[in-house]
Amino acid sequence: MNIKPEQLKQFISDVLHSVGLTKENASIVGDSLVSANLRGVDSHGATRLPIYVKRLKSGAVTPNPEVQIAQESDATLLIDGNDGMGQIVGKRAIEIGVEKAKKHGAVYIGVKNSTHFGTGAFFIQQAIKHDVVAYAMSNAPSTMAPWGGLKPYFGTNPYAFGVPAGKNNPIIFDMATSVVARGKIISAEQRGEDIPEGWAIDSKGRPTTNAKEALEGSVLPFAGPKGYAISLMIDLMSGVLTGAGFGPHINNIYGDFDKPQNVGHFFQLVDVNTFMPAEQFKGRVDQMIDEIKSAPKGEGVEEIFLPGEIERNTEQARLESGISLGEEVYKTLKTVGEENGIDIENYQ
Amino acid sequence: MNIKPEQLKQFISDVLHSVGLTKENASIVGDSLVSANLRGVDSHGATRLPIYVKRLKSGAVTPNPEVQIAQESDATLLIDGNDGMGQIVGKRAIEIGVEKAKKHGAVYIGVKNSTHFGTGAFFIQQAIKHDVVAYAMSNAPSTMAPWGGLKPYFGTNPYAFGVPAGKNNPIIFDMATSVVARGKIISAEQRGEDIPEGWAIDSKGRPTTNAKEALEGSVLPFAGPKGYAISLMIDLMSGVLTGAGFGPHINNIYGDFDKPQNVGHFFQLVDVNTFMPAEQFKGRVDQMIDEIKSAPKGEGVEEIFLPGEIERNTEQARLESGISLGEEVYKTLKTVGEENGIDIENYQ
Repeated sequence: MNIKPEQLKQFISDVLHSVGLTKENASIVGDSLVSANLRGVDSHGATRLPIYVKRLKSGAVTPNPEVQIAQESDATLLIDGNDGMGQIVGKRAIEIGVEKAKKHGAVYIGVKNSTHFGTGAFFIQQAIKHDVVAYAMSNAPSTMAPWGGLKPYFGTNPYAFGVPAGKNNPIIFDMATSVVARGKIISAEQRGEDIPEGWAIDSKGRPTTNAKEALEGSVLPFAGPKGYAISLMIDLMSGVLTGAGFGPHINNIYGDFDKPQNVGHFFQLVDVNTFMPAEQFKGRVDQMIDEIKSAPKGEGVEEIFLPGEIERNTEQARLESGISLGEEVYKTLKTVGEENGIDIENYQ
Repeated sequence: MNIKPEQLKQFISDVLHSVGLTKENASIVGDSLVSANLRGVDSHGATRLPIYVKRLKSGAVTPNPEVQIAQESDATLLIDGNDGMGQIVGKRAIEIGVEKAKKHGAVYIGVKNSTHFGTGAFFIQQAIKHDVVAYAMSNAPSTMAPWGGLKPYFGTNPYAFGVPAGKNNPIIFDMATSVVARGKIISAEQRGEDIPEGWAIDSKGRPTTNAKEALEGSVLPFAGPKGYAISLMIDLMSGVLTGAGFGPHINNIYGDFDKPQNVGHFFQLVDVNTFMPAEQFKGRVDQMIDEIKSAPKGEGVEEIFLPGEIERNTEQARLESGISLGEEVYKTLKTVGEENGIDIENYQ
């Protein structure tokens, strides 16, 4: 099932509007999901719509949150997300943060009372237009054991950063701190496919290639103890420091329908002009990019990529070709549309 | 050769004082190196003294730098290290930064015109006493190829962070963004030992277990493309943003004796009180530590460790037992002492 990006965005927005979001808020979430699909990160794309709708309908998520500053200093912001969708809360947090960074040079932004925020890259793209260096991280419900442990404690806590460039495309990096994003295991399960060994352990701590068993067990941190430490760091900033939930004290997006998730995020913005004129900085970023792109390649390597470059190439291709939704995903979208009086067949 | 930590520190300080550092500056570097030895990070301990002395004597490093603020905003600092030793420059940068963080809530600190700063953990330990969350990173001379590349571009750019805790010990994480710190390969070469496969490639891009060939080739980033991206991020902050050298534009510590290294560092400090009272924050950190320490363990795992806990255990043990220097390291220390009229035999 192939669909044009603009049509997919309109469908998602219409469904979310039908369950109570303002058109503006619905459009923010539509943007985030379709942007993920375009960049090839299908695990964080339209496939998430049904669970988002379910949580909105259950009352666990505030459709149109009042995002407020709970506490602030010159260089820090604590934002209360009012249990809104993470995309809406995060986008507003970045707006407030960019203003502060332009006034005081830089800012650290903690967010509490939020929910799954989609991809970190979405906020990086928003922020770096303002000539800031940007970081986005979030905690998430427990799915990953601490290193040496058996039982999930941390989420797959994503970590993203980006910098603007000059003549080149910006550098945008976005990763899960698990070996792979849990969303990829969810996608595999939906497609009925196995997963590679090394991604996860089952509930008894045994290595597994069965996606369903993996989802009942624990995903593994990337790079062993180093990834465990980075995931822990993200939870310290996003959860412990902000007053949001942390570790197992974050409610499950696929359960706990009677209560808010209380996910926490942490953003960082630095106005590059406080270090050197933005044009000079972007010129130096360009120099680094050019040097890496023209560096000698290893055997069998056709091209050296910058972080985010493969995703950008995919985006260019899918803007042309459209977004191909798997049959399973299409079916769930059709269903969630119908349940809310919207027919996806009208969006072709 | 076993030596008491205090005696080793005195020896290092005396040697550095003999080549022009004030007693205070010499003592800072002594602290950093012995602290690394105590924590089991021997690659960043006393073994570095000979090269430090050589660079000081060549005039490439300023013995007593005038560390100055080159540029600042409320939330950012650009520090000019005057080509001083990284430990001295970094310690001063943290002092200035803590003051700013206490005034404005938080700070981002870029440092240019600096040199090898030892371990990041040294600065984390200094900073977190002031109830801040701290990050320390640095770029370094090219030893690591970009992912897919053949020729060194990035350094093994270290990344460290830490948070204060309450009744528990603080969490302090410090890693190289290579599979292992290059210092470990240097140590292996000094001991005439092989290295495990997967740590490095030779100058032709072939996997190697020969430490000497590895040092002539390229070390590999941890976690493949993810480690490559994190190393790149560190260089963007430490080098590109600060105006220091970056990528291959940083001079070699083991060569280039006629010019400063122009290493850059990047520190981040957040006063936890701007988010919640420090005692409350530390209580939440304690809760996370307690929950992880008591979590169910995987098969064959005796204990789950927090980042920095193994290093702290080693420190406790070595404070008792003393620091064991390998024969090769002892010999180089004896030589560098003698060349400067100081006999290590007097420090027992």
